[in-house]
Amino acid sequence: MDYRVRSLAGAASGASKIDWAGTEMPVLKGIAERFAHEQPLAGVRISACLHVTAETANLMLTLAAGGAQIRLCASNPLSTQDDVAAALVAEHGIPVFAAHGETTLEYYADIDAALAHHPHITLDDGADLIAVLHTKRSDLLADVVGGLEETTTGVVRLRAMARDGMLRYPVIAVNDAMSQHLFDNRYGTGQSTLDGIMRATNILLAGKVFTIAGYGWCGRGIAMRARGMGARVLVTEVDPLRALEAVMDGFEVLPMDHAAPLSDIIVTATGQRDVVTSEHFAIAKNGCILANAGHFNLEISLPALEALASGKSRPRPNLEEYVLRDGRRLRLLAQGRLVNLAAAEGHPAAVMDMSFANQALCVEFLGAKGPKLEARVHEVPIEIDQQVARLKLAAMAVGIDVLTADQVAYATSWISGT
Amino acid sequence: MDYRVRSLAGAASGASKIDWAGTEMPVLKGIAERFAHEQPLAGVRISACLHVTAETANLMLTLAAGGAQIRLCASNPLSTQDDVAAALVAEHGIPVFAAHGETTLEYYADIDAALAHHPHITLDDGADLIAVLHTKRSDLLADVVGGLEETTTGVVRLRAMARDGMLRYPVIAVNDAMSQHLFDNRYGTGQSTLDGIMRATNILLAGKVFTIAGYGWCGRGIAMRARGMGARVLVTEVDPLRALEAVMDGFEVLPMDHAAPLSDIIVTATGQRDVVTSEHFAIAKNGCILANAGHFNLEISLPALEALASGKSRPRPNLEEYVLRDGRRLRLLAQGRLVNLAAAEGHPAAVMDMSFANQALCVEFLGAKGPKLEARVHEVPIEIDQQVARLKLAAMAVGIDVLTADQVAYATSWISGT
Amino acid sequence: MDYRVRSLAGAASGASKIDWAGTEMPVLKGIAERFAHEQPLAGVRISACLHVTAETANLMLTLAAGGAQIRLCASNPLSTQDDVAAALVAEHGIPVFAAHGETTLEYYADIDAALAHHPHITLDDGADLIAVLHTKRSDLLADVVGGLEETTTGVVRLRAMARDGMLRYPVIAVNDAMSQHLFDNRYGTGQSTLDGIMRATNILLAGKVFTIAGYGWCGRGIAMRARGMGARVLVTEVDPLRALEAVMDGFEVLPMDHAAPLSDIIVTATGQRDVVTSEHFAIAKNGCILANAGHFNLEISLPALEALASGKSRPRPNLEEYVLRDGRRLRLLAQGRLVNLAAAEGHPAAVMDMSFANQALCVEFLGAKGPKLEARVHEVPIEIDQQVARLKLAAMAVGIDVLTADQVAYATSWISGT
Amino acid sequence: MDYRVRSLAGAASGASKIDWAGTEMPVLKGIAERFAHEQPLAGVRISACLHVTAETANLMLTLAAGGAQIRLCASNPLSTQDDVAAALVAEHGIPVFAAHGETTLEYYADIDAALAHHPHITLDDGADLIAVLHTKRSDLLADVVGGLEETTTGVVRLRAMARDGMLRYPVIAVNDAMSQHLFDNRYGTGQSTLDGIMRATNILLAGKVFTIAGYGWCGRGIAMRARGMGARVLVTEVDPLRALEAVMDGFEVLPMDHAAPLSDIIVTATGQRDVVTSEHFAIAKNGCILANAGHFNLEISLPALEALASGKSRPRPNLEEYVLRDGRRLRLLAQGRLVNLAAAEGHPAAVMDMSFANQALCVEFLGAKGPKLEARVHEVPIEIDQQVARLKLAAMAVGIDVLTADQVAYATSWISGT
Repeated sequence: MDYRVRSLAGAASGASKIDWAGTEMPVLKGIAERFAHEQPLAGVRISACLHVTAETANLMLTLAAGGAQIRLCASNPLSTQDDVAAALVAEHGIPVFAAHGETTLEYYADIDAALAHHPHITLDDGADLIAVLHTKRSDLLADVVGGLEETTTGVVRLRAMARDGMLRYPVIAVNDAMSQHLFDNRYGTGQSTLDGIMRATNILLAGKVFTIAGYGWCGRGIAMRARGMGARVLVTEVDPLRALEAVMDGFEVLPMDHAAPLSDIIVTATGQRDVVTSEHFAIAKNGCILANAGHFNLEISLPALEALASGKSRPRPNLEEYVLRDGRRLRLLAQGRLVNLAAAEGHPAAVMDMSFANQALCVEFLGAKGPKLEARVHEVPIEIDQQVARLKLAAMAVGIDVLTADQVAYATSWISGT
Repeated sequence: MDYRVRSLAGAASGASKIDWAGTEMPVLKGIAERFAHEQPLAGVRISACLHVTAETANLMLTLAAGGAQIRLCASNPLSTQDDVAAALVAEHGIPVFAAHGETTLEYYADIDAALAHHPHITLDDGADLIAVLHTKRSDLLADVVGGLEETTTGVVRLRAMARDGMLRYPVIAVNDAMSQHLFDNRYGTGQSTLDGIMRATNILLAGKVFTIAGYGWCGRGIAMRARGMGARVLVTEVDPLRALEAVMDGFEVLPMDHAAPLSDIIVTATGQRDVVTSEHFAIAKNGCILANAGHFNLEISLPALEALASGKSRPRPNLEEYVLRDGRRLRLLAQGRLVNLAAAEGHPAAVMDMSFANQALCVEFLGAKGPKLEARVHEVPIEIDQQVARLKLAAMAVGIDVLTADQVAYATSWISGT
Repeated sequence: MDYRVRSLAGAASGASKIDWAGTEMPVLKGIAERFAHEQPLAGVRISACLHVTAETANLMLTLAAGGAQIRLCASNPLSTQDDVAAALVAEHGIPVFAAHGETTLEYYADIDAALAHHPHITLDDGADLIAVLHTKRSDLLADVVGGLEETTTGVVRLRAMARDGMLRYPVIAVNDAMSQHLFDNRYGTGQSTLDGIMRATNILLAGKVFTIAGYGWCGRGIAMRARGMGARVLVTEVDPLRALEAVMDGFEVLPMDHAAPLSDIIVTATGQRDVVTSEHFAIAKNGCILANAGHFNLEISLPALEALASGKSRPRPNLEEYVLRDGRRLRLLAQGRLVNLAAAEGHPAAVMDMSFANQALCVEFLGAKGPKLEARVHEVPIEIDQQVARLKLAAMAVGIDVLTADQVAYATSWISGT
Repeated sequence: MDYRVRSLAGAASGASKIDWAGTEMPVLKGIAERFAHEQPLAGVRISACLHVTAETANLMLTLAAGGAQIRLCASNPLSTQDDVAAALVAEHGIPVFAAHGETTLEYYADIDAALAHHPHITLDDGADLIAVLHTKRSDLLADVVGGLEETTTGVVRLRAMARDGMLRYPVIAVNDAMSQHLFDNRYGTGQSTLDGIMRATNILLAGKVFTIAGYGWCGRGIAMRARGMGARVLVTEVDPLRALEAVMDGFEVLPMDHAAPLSDIIVTATGQRDVVTSEHFAIAKNGCILANAGHFNLEISLPALEALASGKSRPRPNLEEYVLRDGRRLRLLAQGRLVNLAAAEGHPAAVMDMSFANQALCVEFLGAKGPKLEARVHEVPIEIDQQVARLKLAAMAVGIDVLTADQVAYATSWISGT
């Protein structure tokens, strides 16, 4: 079997992590059981470019249970759990191409390897595999019936491609599913970003001035949790509707150059580049902590920070302290990479349970309907979204009401008055 | 001039209310100034079926400033402010057909009167005027180029009509605008529902068990505010995604027949009928307060409550106490009508400022583009939504960031990597 | 019978209000039943200077049920409910001396009248009756065995008197009871202040900048509720510990001269005088709303405001708009008097249930133990506090755990190790 | 020099941790600078039994800077940071007697060693050193002028000793300082308990049912933060006043045997023993997580849990999974020891900054006034408390208002009226 992992030695440890994560993923587990029985993916070849974690491993096992042939590479060099990669290879016979801390060269080589079996379906987290498929490996496009993309950042890229007529197969924006928004971005990233900051710094959040750049789903989640931990939360935005929502939610909204001198902590979650840059470093409060919760490590301008600094140390893991020429110290977490993945453990398993249940059902949908879909970005079918929510509520033993026949009739009728 | 109001005696008082509301509506005021200058509605005939309040009056004045000819009737017999109606007639020459507490017969006669000048554009709050236009007065349809509808309930009815091929002109669901959601439903209804309950009962909310039926925009707003006042909040739902969102927001979600015996207060906000009914009255806690925040007074089953009661008194305005045969007392607010309108003052002016700024710009849009639109329910153009938000932020002196040219390029490019 | 009320005409309406409030006061009702049976206050003469409301009436009836002879006057000229006063006189034979809107002269004459039967026990809300007793009517001191005072402001005055050796009988600071803090000041004032502001202005609180002067129990309650309604809350303080607590609770703490230009609303709750004064009016935001939640109407400097204003109008009840010479408008609620009493209905009955249950038990305690207590300010005995809480939990059907014998032993032992 | 640490090898790493913590402790640092100059502790011998962490090290350095001679042992075998202990010995010449994971025998031998220089002043965290001094080493009592105790649990023990006439020297309950409550118990334990649970489990807290046993300062802090992370929070209590406060704060209060079957997470913070025991394990929800935030590991009945279990595994560090005979799995964190210390890093440095500033000033106070104080539990002098708060506000650059001369006069006068 073809694969590239750091070592197979950690397979037992990885298998135990996969099992543990599995106990927190009851929705995906239920789907795996149905897939094993129905084999909806028999003969389907899948290339997946995702964070190689214990939760992702459970998605791979679910798809494999449904009959799929999978090759997996990493969507981020720093998020790979080497023992999990080893376990997938050694215990489950799934080819993985990923190693923690790999170089950019290795990263792209691994994407190539993941594509080698001529996929029918692609799974992406940041659209890197799709990008390779549309440029260097466009020879493989003929076999592809569809793909999934799970980040906002990736979806923006794909929409741009579709607008330019460059997207060659249908892609479902799994990230736009309601069940995904709720769990992955709002609640998942909200909690894990705070978790990452606490692990990296062990600072008390209560009473701190905590600025969040971006009030999208992730930003809202972080803002809600930062306030929940007792911080005074400021928000910066470029979109007037989001800015207004933040104001109405009771947050102080202001431009970054007003926020920087007030902030004890600044977290970026915009999907943009250069959100905190030299003009802000120049006026930031002494001791300010800088972290990024957006997909790429471009949101905090690292080159500008390096250029301004006269010294640098690492007093704690995942925390680098830059000393500026005027003596102020700025503290960068996780080198500006996703702080929840690098300094904490990424999304909790329960979050990924929802996301990956969603993805498993979307893969099944693409297997059946992909060939008939237009080559553009598609939303997750509402039925899949509701099915995931329904399975989750059942797993939590939460009961809800059911419309009566009269109520159904009322909801669909238009002849009734005051 | 043709009109029907209770009396013109209150015109001075009404004019003062209109002025005061106007000071809280800076966004609409800015639009009125532009309209007065540009006259975008010159010659346009408008029929409006809205709550006849001081805020609505400011919308009427804005449209009139733009050159429109307006006739206004009430969308709810209990929300009419008679002095405001008088002021519109006597001070501003706008024909109004509405009186507080009017009968159902008068209500429909007033709708007929509002249609008498053969409107080009209709404004609705619950789709009653549109319904009349599509049934009894379909002779007038030829002149109509478009309409606005501002309630969720109304939009559901219109979508049903469109689905059945019955909708004969394009209608913009102004309620679906982001700026409307935020202000009107979430923040507006959230606050004013609590306000109505406090005015009607003067009970302490902290520590009370407060059940909300429905976790749509209104329900979310009410839940957020009830928690903000210290209540323990329970939620009932029929939609699995909304139910799950409520769970993730930390609320207890359960069916109504589990919630009823626990609740000190039950508020409906579903858009459905018979949400709290005899099976729930039978098990409700002694002293339970029942209120409705949904559009129609069908959410709490009044006939069932009347049938179960052995006695009834009115210890406070807007509060009727029903004594059941087993001695338990249930307290119904505002006869099951919209508690925020009946027991408080409806939405604060700042809320209506956003809604009506939105509607004023949508009327302008319909005037220009209406004839070219399909006869279905349309969303508010995003540009209008953003323009309203931008004007509001400016009025609040809140600054936001602006994308740099590099950032704009980044957001629209798809060729970039990890 | 001796009394002075506006008119006896409203007695029936007052009686109905008293009954309704009684249904919300189950704890006091339980005590009244025991009192009626045990007659612990037989022959005890009581003079009470309290807000004359339906809830106070229930306290009076409870004390009367216990055998006491009572005379009641008002602790604030604006809080008297004339129909309740009438009902106490006409239906229950309790002498009341109070009329809504009475003059200062009448106010003090009524205090004199309430003292005319030579009280054994005094009840105060602001220490005015005690002050009269210690100055003009010191001839009556010989009969008095003790008193109650229920405001923070009053307790401060009494402690000053005690410190100067001027206090002549023991006074229980009922306000310092835990059950009182929680309900009366934190939850009661918190909610009713917001309620008063909403009724007086009907403004949307979400997104507003809301400054609270003072972070004592009342200030904390108001801050918590203002945030709960979506406002951005600022706090001013003079005490470093309270200031720090506000910071740690996530609020922005700053001096009033920094807060004034930022604030849409300023509420004082300090117990001090001249907290918002000419230097702040000079820089306040146009449209700023000023309200007071502290005992006396000295917190906002009215003479300074009158002096600065070039005009004044009253666009809504309880709201006066001052136009300053530079065109800015400042809006004063309830003439700077307690906004929750003047513009809303004061504390909800459930709040007063706790406070008055506490006071009823303290009166019983003074009747039994008063003669043996030192002439100083006393705390409420913890047993009374706990008894009130226990009765309240029972009324709410909330169960709690009970220590096992082993746990009691553990809690009182000091010989145990790591 | 006498000492007992695991090894001196980690001294450099420990010194770096001490420095880093020092940058987060500006209040203590300011006091150290004054102490170095004034030498208020010259010749004072101190025995300290505290968690041996980087923050404690900064307190030791502050006291040493003031001239004190110190011996330090551990107050908990699991909280010792061996490298910090090494650094204190090797870099700062302070005798430490502590090693991570030491046996009970070693633990008590270390306390003996810490007492060997015949202390004048003792510092305790759980009253173990004081207990030894009052039993086995009562020969040393003659030299002692006073002590400090910083846990609620320890203070309860000391009050019991004082009540029995057994306490032989004055002890200041530093834990009862307002600045300590706020930071150490409410905000510190609140955050670090959540942090410990997240690190130990990586579960998503939003939507989970989270039960807290005990609504004291720690319990309140945990409840506030658990809600802030989106959990549905239940509270159990034995004290009616605290139970009522929890109800009024919007939490569901119920007995533990009702809470256990509903809970995804149960955290104890009571200071009691056997709070969660076999009757609760018998009905707990499958997968329930059990953690303790109280001082001793007696709150969850471990022997009962061991007795009920048929198997046990450790899928993550600090998490042991017990399999019960009926197949349910219960997950115990950190062996029932303080979860914030064992699974996270204990209190953030900023918390300890306040606590230790408080303690440093109390040691100075005891040095000067100890011989004149009664042998009982004393409160922290309010002046010390305010001084700490004032220093902290200054360090955070937060400004507050100052009373005018007129206001000071008003606050202390009692002759003023309505």
